[in-house]
Amino acid sequence: MPESRPKRPRASRDAIAKISQELERALSRKRLVADPDLLENYATDESCAGSYVPQIAVRPKTTEDVEKSIAIAVRNGVPVVPRGGGTGRAGGCLAVEGGMVLAMEGMNRIISLDKSSFTATVQPGVVTGALHEAVEAEGMFYPPDPSSLDSCQIGGNVATNASGPRNPKYGPTRDQLLGLEVVLATGERLRLGGRALKGVAGYDLVSLFCGSEGTLGVITEVTLRLLPRPRHVETALLFFPGADLASRAVVAIMQAGHSPRALEMMDHVALEAIRPKALFRFPEGNQSSLILELDGNDKDALFASLASIGEQAESSLGASLVLVARDESQRRDIWASRRLLSPAIKERWGQKYAEDIAVPLSEVPRIVERVHQRAAEQELETAIFGHAGDGSLHVNILFQDQSAWPSVMRAAEAIFRDTVELGGTITSEHGIGILKRPYLALEQTPPLIALQRQMKRLFDPRDLMNPGKIFP
Amino acid sequence: MPESRPKRPRASRDAIAKISQELERALSRKRLVADPDLLENYATDESCAGSYVPQIAVRPKTTEDVEKSIAIAVRNGVPVVPRGGGTGRAGGCLAVEGGMVLAMEGMNRIISLDKSSFTATVQPGVVTGALHEAVEAEGMFYPPDPSSLDSCQIGGNVATNASGPRNPKYGPTRDQLLGLEVVLATGERLRLGGRALKGVAGYDLVSLFCGSEGTLGVITEVTLRLLPRPRHVETALLFFPGADLASRAVVAIMQAGHSPRALEMMDHVALEAIRPKALFRFPEGNQSSLILELDGNDKDALFASLASIGEQAESSLGASLVLVARDESQRRDIWASRRLLSPAIKERWGQKYAEDIAVPLSEVPRIVERVHQRAAEQELETAIFGHAGDGSLHVNILFQDQSAWPSVMRAAEAIFRDTVELGGTITSEHGIGILKRPYLALEQTPPLIALQRQMKRLFDPRDLMNPGKIFP
Repeated sequence: MPESRPKRPRASRDAIAKISQELERALSRKRLVADPDLLENYATDESCAGSYVPQIAVRPKTTEDVEKSIAIAVRNGVPVVPRGGGTGRAGGCLAVEGGMVLAMEGMNRIISLDKSSFTATVQPGVVTGALHEAVEAEGMFYPPDPSSLDSCQIGGNVATNASGPRNPKYGPTRDQLLGLEVVLATGERLRLGGRALKGVAGYDLVSLFCGSEGTLGVITEVTLRLLPRPRHVETALLFFPGADLASRAVVAIMQAGHSPRALEMMDHVALEAIRPKALFRFPEGNQSSLILELDGNDKDALFASLASIGEQAESSLGASLVLVARDESQRRDIWASRRLLSPAIKERWGQKYAEDIAVPLSEVPRIVERVHQRAAEQELETAIFGHAGDGSLHVNILFQDQSAWPSVMRAAEAIFRDTVELGGTITSEHGIGILKRPYLALEQTPPLIALQRQMKRLFDPRDLMNPGKIFP
Repeated sequence: MPESRPKRPRASRDAIAKISQELERALSRKRLVADPDLLENYATDESCAGSYVPQIAVRPKTTEDVEKSIAIAVRNGVPVVPRGGGTGRAGGCLAVEGGMVLAMEGMNRIISLDKSSFTATVQPGVVTGALHEAVEAEGMFYPPDPSSLDSCQIGGNVATNASGPRNPKYGPTRDQLLGLEVVLATGERLRLGGRALKGVAGYDLVSLFCGSEGTLGVITEVTLRLLPRPRHVETALLFFPGADLASRAVVAIMQAGHSPRALEMMDHVALEAIRPKALFRFPEGNQSSLILELDGNDKDALFASLASIGEQAESSLGASLVLVARDESQRRDIWASRRLLSPAIKERWGQKYAEDIAVPLSEVPRIVERVHQRAAEQELETAIFGHAGDGSLHVNILFQDQSAWPSVMRAAEAIFRDTVELGGTITSEHGIGILKRPYLALEQTPPLIALQRQMKRLFDPRDLMNPGKIFP
């Protein structure tokens, strides 16, 4: 079995008073947050992982602020918990053992946006949507588009290797990531990678940091590759009698040679939830849908592809209806419905436990079936939607009050086991955080987990960087 | 300064005799290579790093063979040097401290090619070109295309994070890599990643192994993501009066919104070398060229893009001539000329020291100028060609006999310094191996190198996996 670690007790009041004084001396006082009411702002994220009020918080403006804060915290044996937009779904940014939150929102400067090298260098607190706007204003394109893009931050995107609907064509954050500046618990500031579009000097520590959920160090600068902006985007909404047909259609469309940038599925429960809120009329009945999106520089070619996919869908994939967005406003409506999903589900059922499993594409129909079965065994409902083009599904186990929690947990564990059995992963994009820690051992062997713990120790000998995350 | 390690003495004859006996008992005898003449086959690669005859070699067929070989070697304190196609340009697969070569050519089975999950699982000895053929026969596509694809192996591609001309659009091996099976020096066999197209459970050890040049463990199985095969490819050859104009054109073409899958540059020296061998008439004069390639599913759209790029090139980018391949055979001729380059240069000048630097796209004109200046300072000629769409340039320092070696080394070091000064890397795709070890410290700080050494020690406590590589 993987070794386990006892939870560290929260730092004493005296210890916090001491580091508070040290921080005041080292940093501008306005960087410091000690007021309990304000600290509450950093107590939760968008998961159901609970509330953990940090004992102190720093809002750095510069890498030097981060270095000083980490030095003071580490010297006093106090945990350091970096926090981006707080939009995580796995509790990854919560101060579960107390200590100091490093809230990166103040480090929100776009340092450079270079049209002649197709790179952007930014501070980690830049909001992803703001980067999109700035990049697109220059005729360039940054693909990763997590659904929280209006509030999530690039640093958090890197820490979780965030992706989003455009992943099938463009890949996750890691595929756009060229360089990082990080500060380790040992006090070292390292520059990893750089601004060249390709490089293989030494180990790929850039990728190692990407997705490490703040457990190896704090990201203080990010260099990203940008792309030429595709001139046209075409979007369609396809309806199918069931999720199995919708997921089979995903593979068939790819087999026909198409490379959609997005292929998003919603099952009938998800569709029911947004029906009253959708900005256009959804067909009635027991349906599933796919949002399909293509991009490129030639409008006619995109339309021809869309027409061919629509024909294929209706003639041989069992689609009951194909709607093509006729203009930008219809496109926006389709995506707005997709983005309404999470809040609509929460509103209708009260609570949801959101998984983000992924399986090989061929196994999507099977896992959809298993999910319904596992939920039914616990007398629970689920809404499934997600990035079907990646085999990545958001399985939302729906419940109304805490009394259902044990059943929810039983259903979740059964689904995780099924997912791993089908060759999949328990987290396709949200990360392990604290919510999925108990299940990591379903997917990874004890020696593999032990090796990662040793790596963590190498970077962070006293286990002070976002402790209590990832590993069981 | 980074700590340095003394070179390990070669194992004694007795030690080799002993492990030879143990290997014979543990494996089929025909897996073993002990004949000095046959061992010569594993003494060199395609670099000018010299000849290092291994003391013994094993040609495993299975992961179990690899496990047993590593266990025996490690127990006896003998280095293990994994070897793919032997096409490396940095000496990465050479047994510089003697010991046992693990020649992976016998592990050449395509385990699965799954059209319904768009994945391939292969043994590491599968030749990259053979994988391309098998994948394309199924209507799918595996983008990475190192120029040695007829003899390099997938395992070596992963170990070096190989890429090739199609990198600008599709990225390197790492971007297609989903899962690995590896055997560590500690005897552990680990499965990293999986077959799902997305996953963020734990640290990204898949990416860490990718590009680690065999220093962390031996790759025994590889799972790759496949793509739908683009139906059409269009190729053009653009000539410019000089390399500066050609490299500025790369950025301008991207700024105009195009995303070519390949943008390959050759300077006038490179063009002169292939002129007598080229399969079509090259224009005369002091020229540089770009091979530009687009792919997609709509032939008309590709042609329209190509026409628009051609017009832009002639009207505003200073192109002197634009040739568009009219059919597949002309396409092949263009690429055949590109592939002739390396041998043609070797034939004309006798010897070349090949660098594979990369700089930010904006700095390509400047580094081209600096390269010529640095070579001229040493009274040497250079031929520059490479993946200009990535800012990745093969700088070939040309010489005829060993007496020029000290000047070559002086020019190389000066070019590496300039590259790093311009924000670039000393190796964009070949790896550090042994040839670039002395220069890693130009690009990376002592703490960063020390950290990587510690990681190496974690995976390989006795420093027996491909020792003497990467780190200075």
